[in-house]
Amino acid sequence: MKILSKIAEVRALLEPARAEDKTIGVMGTSGRMHAGHISLIEKAVAENDLAIMFWMGGGEGLYERNWDDDVKLIEPTGVEYAYLPDYADFMPVRPSYTLTTLPQLSTGAPPMEPVEHLDAVTTTTAKLFNVFGPMRYYSGEKDWQQLAMFKRMAIDLSWDIEVIGCPVVREADGVAMSSRNVKLTAEERARAPALYRALVKGKEAIESGETGSAKVVSLVREAMGDAGEVIYVHALDAETLQPMDRLTGEIRIIASLKLGEVPLVDNIGATAK
Amino acid sequence: MKILSKIAEVRALLEPARAEDKTIGVMGTSGRMHAGHISLIEKAVAENDLAIMFWMGGGEGLYERNWDDDVKLIEPTGVEYAYLPDYADFMPVRPSYTLTTLPQLSTGAPPMEPVEHLDAVTTTTAKLFNVFGPMRYYSGEKDWQQLAMFKRMAIDLSWDIEVIGCPVVREADGVAMSSRNVKLTAEERARAPALYRALVKGKEAIESGETGSAKVVSLVREAMGDAGEVIYVHALDAETLQPMDRLTGEIRIIASLKLGEVPLVDNIGATAK
Repeated sequence: MKILSKIAEVRALLEPARAEDKTIGVMGTSGRMHAGHISLIEKAVAENDLAIMFWMGGGEGLYERNWDDDVKLIEPTGVEYAYLPDYADFMPVRPSYTLTTLPQLSTGAPPMEPVEHLDAVTTTTAKLFNVFGPMRYYSGEKDWQQLAMFKRMAIDLSWDIEVIGCPVVREADGVAMSSRNVKLTAEERARAPALYRALVKGKEAIESGETGSAKVVSLVREAMGDAGEVIYVHALDAETLQPMDRLTGEIRIIASLKLGEVPLVDNIGATAK
Repeated sequence: MKILSKIAEVRALLEPARAEDKTIGVMGTSGRMHAGHISLIEKAVAENDLAIMFWMGGGEGLYERNWDDDVKLIEPTGVEYAYLPDYADFMPVRPSYTLTTLPQLSTGAPPMEPVEHLDAVTTTTAKLFNVFGPMRYYSGEKDWQQLAMFKRMAIDLSWDIEVIGCPVVREADGVAMSSRNVKLTAEERARAPALYRALVKGKEAIESGETGSAKVVSLVREAMGDAGEVIYVHALDAETLQPMDRLTGEIRIIASLKLGEVPLVDNIGATAK
């Protein structure tokens, strides 16, 4: 695997490939990788002539902390290139004054991820769209709100980029792979499957003909029982993240369950009749 | 001149040119063209292997209104390509949910252009950056606030685009070329030179050693006398548009003078000692 650290190196690699009509697959992570991330790299490798991943670590000083662990997971995927930004090159002028923001999908949607976090994620993603250029961008369905934003911003602002959502990777008991799972105690981990089980109940209700949003939400809440503190449950338009009284079309049920100090998030798709 | 109306046509033209290392110059207008716009096209043509302009008209239904007039001015420049967006192709999904916004240069700067207008301009420009791809983007210094935003967003979000500011084109008496000038009565037009004359006074003061911002602003206001209604005068950091008590470095004096119903805007650069 070849490590690139400068934007100019990334462009020097990708521009000639593009000129030869090679397809380019990109996926990224902020470190603390798990099987969910690896599945994205594998897909980017399998479906493209050239695959490159980026690894943003946890910020400037935290680089070395995880890379050595993560690289052991990454290498077996066969991905040829990893971009680990040199921050002085990535952000030559600070502070950044420019935001890429989707108010209807952040403040305009029911409260899920904090808006400042979402703005930072969409702005950084816009920058990465420009660093890599035309490509296929692989992003996990685990962070559904972010994925919906990436897809929409590519369309709205005409980036020549195809955003590809990839299914959530789960443990044998249904728990979604997440960097947060390691923070759970054994006892909390034992209660964690309740989240996905409840989402499946909601999906089944919708696909059996239930179209009342409030009804689906309360079914999911009940199904979680006393497994933990339910932070939120929403049944939303899968694309626009808008709530609707009567569910129609492609629905996403998005929920967060807090176990001890750890808020787990998960989601599931359902097609309303 | 070849007219393109689809994003795919623009890309089919520019991608092979880019693969051959041709330089690409782009400039755009919202119609009602004058010698200022023409100077941008001429520069884009002179400095690049391939030049393309875009013409956004006044919106969907207003297309035909000005194009026939404008094309008579455009053709002598020798620009080979004009992109007149087919709006269904340009915005296939509506409404757009994505904003590209620079709060520090809009709401964070002293009030000049309306923030909603600036957000619309920077968002549309972000979209055009993506439609055209890597290029040199020519933009007039006449709209200094917008130009500062275009430059900053290209840096902040790593667009592979060089934003090139072009000097204000002026009538013989110093009045900046503007679509608004035709709305002036003969009597108002006779008073219009006061705006630029006052800006020159401010520049001279700064370059003679005056570093008090309030002093420069009041000099410029006084120099406009009773020529019209002074809407604003600001002496700002040329790049960040931030006010400063004591002027240092590259300064931009930006002013608006209303004559009858027409607010004229103009600006000038000065290097503080």
